[in-house]
Amino acid sequence: MTVGGSALQGAMPARDTTLRFDPNYDAAGLVTAIVTTRDGALLMVAHMNAEAIAATQVSGEATFWSRSRGRLWKKGETSGNVMRVVEMRVDCDQDALWLIVDPAGPACHTGADSCFFRRVEGDALVRLL
Amino acid sequence: MTVGGSALQGAMPARDTTLRFDPNYDAAGLVTAIVTTRDGALLMVAHMNAEAIAATQVSGEATFWSRSRGRLWKKGETSGNVMRVVEMRVDCDQDALWLIVDPAGPACHTGADSCFFRRVEGDALVRLL
Repeated sequence: MTVGGSALQGAMPARDTTLRFDPNYDAAGLVTAIVTTRDGALLMVAHMNAEAIAATQVSGEATFWSRSRGRLWKKGETSGNVMRVVEMRVDCDQDALWLIVDPAGPACHTGADSCFFRRVEGDALVRLL
Repeated sequence: MTVGGSALQGAMPARDTTLRFDPNYDAAGLVTAIVTTRDGALLMVAHMNAEAIAATQVSGEATFWSRSRGRLWKKGETSGNVMRVVEMRVDCDQDALWLIVDPAGPACHTGADSCFFRRVEGDALVRLL
């Protein structure tokens, strides 16, 4: 509920319900990108700026903003393990994207299919993949 | 490959392969938490600090750090829609966690089962849930 355009406490911001894509970038101009397969295996987490989103939409291949390299980074540009985007969704407050992809190969630089290859058990990790 | 403990260019940091849980917190003391169901539906993205991780491990119920409220936030503490954690995984560089949960109800404050209830199509969104 909003009154005169200003949100009351507990009200729903327009971004949460609109049918307009309006990414809520952080101070660095980024949103979080969650990448899964069609069957829901979580592959990786990365970041996208407006340019990465546009490049992904135009090419159909997942393209991120590399914070460490300070440049656009098409996943698989070196390894060949590109990710074809089947569907892109946005979360309620539009600061996170869900990319459902068909990966051409392992997602992780370690060679594992997913970056999430270890289970947390207390202070220890158990390798699964 | 490391030499004398210092990483060479392109080498694999110890954090990426260790079997010790060593979260790589950002400047605000947070890691990203990705929450899915057992069958891979992406429910929400949130943040956890060391305290939230410990609370989740002890209680078995997903507990996050609310950046807007500046305090620990057990999911469902108000709504009753708690999330029982089935498994927790960590990604290669240990700055993201994957929580596989059994949710007691909708994940999203809008009432949708998942916060990712809209598909992105160009500049438009299509409501799916």
